[in-house]
Amino acid sequence: MSSSARFELFSYWRTSATYRVRVALNLKGIAVQETNVDLDAGEQRGEAFLKINPMGAIPALIDHGPGASPLPLTQSLPILEFLDELYPTPALLPQGAHARARVRSLAAMLAGDTHPLITPRVRKYLTGTGGFDDAAWRAWQIQWFSTGLRALEQRLAQEPETGDFCHGDSVTMADICLASIIVVMRVFRIEVEGIPTVMRIMARCEQMEAFAKADPRWQAGAPSA
Amino acid sequence: MSSSARFELFSYWRTSATYRVRVALNLKGIAVQETNVDLDAGEQRGEAFLKINPMGAIPALIDHGPGASPLPLTQSLPILEFLDELYPTPALLPQGAHARARVRSLAAMLAGDTHPLITPRVRKYLTGTGGFDDAAWRAWQIQWFSTGLRALEQRLAQEPETGDFCHGDSVTMADICLASIIVVMRVFRIEVEGIPTVMRIMARCEQMEAFAKADPRWQAGAPSA
Repeated sequence: MSSSARFELFSYWRTSATYRVRVALNLKGIAVQETNVDLDAGEQRGEAFLKINPMGAIPALIDHGPGASPLPLTQSLPILEFLDELYPTPALLPQGAHARARVRSLAAMLAGDTHPLITPRVRKYLTGTGGFDDAAWRAWQIQWFSTGLRALEQRLAQEPETGDFCHGDSVTMADICLASIIVVMRVFRIEVEGIPTVMRIMARCEQMEAFAKADPRWQAGAPSA
Repeated sequence: MSSSARFELFSYWRTSATYRVRVALNLKGIAVQETNVDLDAGEQRGEAFLKINPMGAIPALIDHGPGASPLPLTQSLPILEFLDELYPTPALLPQGAHARARVRSLAAMLAGDTHPLITPRVRKYLTGTGGFDDAAWRAWQIQWFSTGLRALEQRLAQEPETGDFCHGDSVTMADICLASIIVVMRVFRIEVEGIPTVMRIMARCEQMEAFAKADPRWQAGAPSA
């Protein structure tokens, strides 16, 4: 990681969406300079960061490369698609339109239907206006982690395309999203029972350096164990 | 729409995610047979539909075409990507990796970060376990529609790539997502102030038959005005 890296990633140690981008960069061997946005201090809602992303969310990726747009890229799955277009090897999507639709759908079940429900801005609303205490917030987190992961488990266990990974025997965006949910559940000390296929694939992912290095515990700013 | 149509769409008249798929099918001139899933009666959580999509969510698209996978395709944005790969004209994504990343990010701000918060399963939880009354649920809806659309407005108003539509002068996935949020807000009689660029683009979309025909009001099962 040198300051001359082409890409600059606005990130925070424990977030699921930033983890996805870290894993993809690691898999493709792309150097990046990380800039910390302290979500626990609310920096994502500060004036400086809102100029980077008016949605007040990370990750944001700036491409300082030749011919690049000066606009920061935002939203984790669009960033993964972008990196896969620029650096096609190893591919994060399989060959064939139906296969790609399956992988994108598995990824969206987690990055789209699950993760947005447990983000800091939702916590802020529910524990403020919504009147949730800590136990109610925790029950909410468990509800949506469970809903998403159990639906994913059912698909992975039933669908013949599942292999060592979510789709066949190579890593795809779906595995990156799966792992991104499991690592953030660990941060919150939440476990979901009855998802053996999900956990088998998670264990397989963690054998790979690209995933292991992206783990929240090893990022700058993470609390020591 | 004949029963020999290649595609079967599991849908409901008022949902934002199904609307996106309808608009894309209309734009590309693809015939479809719709099968109604009555969300207000909870059919999406019934045993029959959970075999189609374990997430209990629509849309689901079955491709009965030659060589097609028997698995239903799910999640609106992956379905749009799929349709765009199979039927490239008119394209729902622009040329160039940075441009595609921008369009996918604008789309994900709404389909990913906004819409999942106001789905029936979230309503069920908040008005049950969460203790929300009707007014609290409505305030919740307004909060997330406003957050998503105001962030979108800021990007559209500032970023030079914005044209007649969200990205230049052709319809993309971003416009489809924008319109999908506005139409469902109308169903719920919710208005968000201070989004002139969003509303200008919405008006432009509605001049097109592909959008007008997909309007929730004209779908089977919609209440008469």
